Order: sequence, then C-alpha cells, then structure tokens
Amino acid sequence: MKIAGLIAHTKGPSFKPIALLVVVAAIAVAAALSTAARADGEAAPIFGIKIPPGYRDWKLISVAHEEGNLNDLRAILGNDVAIKAYREGKLPFPDGAIIARLAWSYVSSEENNKVFGRQQSFVAGPPTNLQFMVKDSRKYASTGGWGFAQFNHGKPADEALLKTCFPCHEPIKARDFLFTHYSP
Amino acid sequence: MKIAGLIAHTKGPSFKPIALLVVVAAIAVAAALSTAARADGEAAPIFGIKIPPGYRDWKLISVAHEEGNLNDLRAILGNDVAIKAYREGKLPFPDGAIIARLAWSYVSSEENNKVFGRQQSFVAGPPTNLQFMVKDSRKYASTGGWGFAQFNHGKPADEALLKTCFPCHEPIKARDFLFTHYSP
Repeated sequence: MKIAGLIAHTKGPSFKPIALLVVVAAIAVAAALSTAARADGEAAPIFGIKIPPGYRDWKLISVAHEEGNLNDLRAILGNDVAIKAYREGKLPFPDGAIIARLAWSYVSSEENNKVFGRQQSFVAGPPTNLQFMVKDSRKYASTGGWGFAQFNHGKPADEALLKTCFPCHEPIKARDFLFTHYSP
Repeated sequence: MKIAGLIAHTKGPSFKPIALLVVVAAIAVAAALSTAARADGEAAPIFGIKIPPGYRDWKLISVAHEEGNLNDLRAILGNDVAIKAYREGKLPFPDGAIIARLAWSYVSSEENNKVFGRQQSFVAGPPTNLQFMVKDSRKYASTGGWGFAQFNHGKPADEALLKTCFPCHEPIKARDFLFTHYSP
C-alpha cells in the first residue's frame, strides 16, 4: 500500500484536501484487506464454510429464546445482502446472503431482578455456539441453495451434526428454509 | 450540493479518479444530510430526544427477555460511539454514545415448535416500545449524563413515565447506569 507515493502525485496546495481523501480511501482499503485476511479459521465440514469476518458487526434480523436442551437467548444477524432481501421480502434469497445465528446461555440476572424487585430478567450469559447459513444456489443446490455451519468456541462442529441442519430447515421451504422472520 | 462545480474545479485527464472520489464524497455527505433531515418525529418530553435516524441498522450489544408485565424479547443496539466504548470497556461512556433498546412481545412459535416436536421456541412478535439512552454529560448532568426516551409506535411516552427512568438506572452507577453487558 504505497500511500506516500499516492500523496506525491497530488502536488500543489489546492490539492491537499484531495490528497487527504486519497489517503483516507487507501487506509480504508488496507483495513478491509486486513479484516479479510483474518478469515483464516478452520472450515466446517461438508459445506466448507469458515467464520465470516466481521459477522459480529452485521445488522439485526431478530431475536429468540429456545427452551429445552438449547436453553439459550439468540440473535440472528445478516450481512447486507441478507438484510436487503429480508427487508424487501424477496424470495429466494440471492447468492451471497449470509445469516449468522449467535447464541448465549439463558441466565437469570440477579442484578436486574434486584432493581425490578422481582424475578423477571433473563440475559445473555456465556456464548454457546455460532451458526451460519450461506446462500450459494449452485454450490449448495442439494440443500436448498444453503450451506450450513456451526462453530463451538471457534471450532467447527462435526459432519454428523451438520447433516441434521437441512432436514430440520426443509419444512420451511416456502420461506427459503429460514425460520426467522424479520423484526421491525 | 454543487457537485457540478466540484467536478469543474478538477480539470485534466489525470484527475478523473480524484474527481470521482470528490463526487462520491459529495454524494455521501448529501445522503448523510438527507438521513439527518428525516429525524423530524416528535421529541420525547424532559430530555427532548427524537428517534435517531438509522438506529435499526446499529450494531448489537446484547439480547434479553423480561417476564412479568413487560413480557418481551429485546435487543440492545448501540451507535458506533457506544459500541466502541462497550468493546473497549471504557467508563464513563463518551458524549455522543446512544443505546437503543428495541422490544417485541414474547410469542410462542407454533411453526418452530412443530419442527422441534416440542414447545420450546419463543420468538419476537409485534414491537412493543422503543427506548433510547443518549449520553450528553452537560445537557443531562442531573441524570448521570444520560437522557432517556421511550416511543410507543413512534409516539413519545409522557413525562410521568420518563421520570421513572433514571431512578431505576441509578443503582447501576458503577457501570455508567447501563444494565446491559456486551455479549461477545
């Protein structure tokens, strides 16, 4: 990234703000490249999906609570392609859409309950696991165009678990296999 | 926004990419101004806070479930200033930080339960209300530096309700009056 070189080409006092813009743009590109380079984790089996860089910054689709063995609080986030499709109500989702499902253990908050004066507040505890659905209609044609991945503290879940993803999502075919509705 | 004028000042073929950058920057500023102009809703009493434009696109801080009269699922989002402060663990939060609390009614999902084969899935139903905490250490000095607002379907809640915000947040003074912990 030859920032000094870029500045040298924009001579004269009247171009200083433009030189600054170029430097800002160059830094932005460098930052984007450095973020992309961080996607070096282990890929999940079957679908070959790695944890997408920057997923924690994605926009919110909705939230949910699962009881039973899962016993979690979850947030469903989407990359820009997914959010656009959700908001426009377009089905099927376009290639490039990625849904991230973050989950944390379901914890009673003593701190909050003390303030409320009653047992009513449940908050997100430690993370449980992380799931992704990646749309690629060719690559994942046999599973409705979606690839599935799960990571437990950064480590991909095994093949046996990933084989259970699509059969579970299959009944929601009419909504392109997505359980989650967008919450305004 | 005199975009044509800006282009006219950047003559010569070698400056075309720079002219383009200037145009892009000008469009970005115009878009930002147009977004800001949309913040024309009614302001909440006492603290004079309007619904911040673009809050639905903010990054996620955490999620929670409140039982009792609230009976909701909630997502807590933050603007970039707030997210940065949360991630860096800096207290008190700097001026300009805004926390958004979205809440939806707590609804049992028959659709999901049918797939799971048991009653276990609770999802976000219709929105209940929307709350904001805005940090301005001078303007809101008497309430810990935070202004509070609540909107019910776009309409600000009344003064009586807003007077209850700070007394409830006061016990969490050690964490700058914020109940919510950041969820990784």
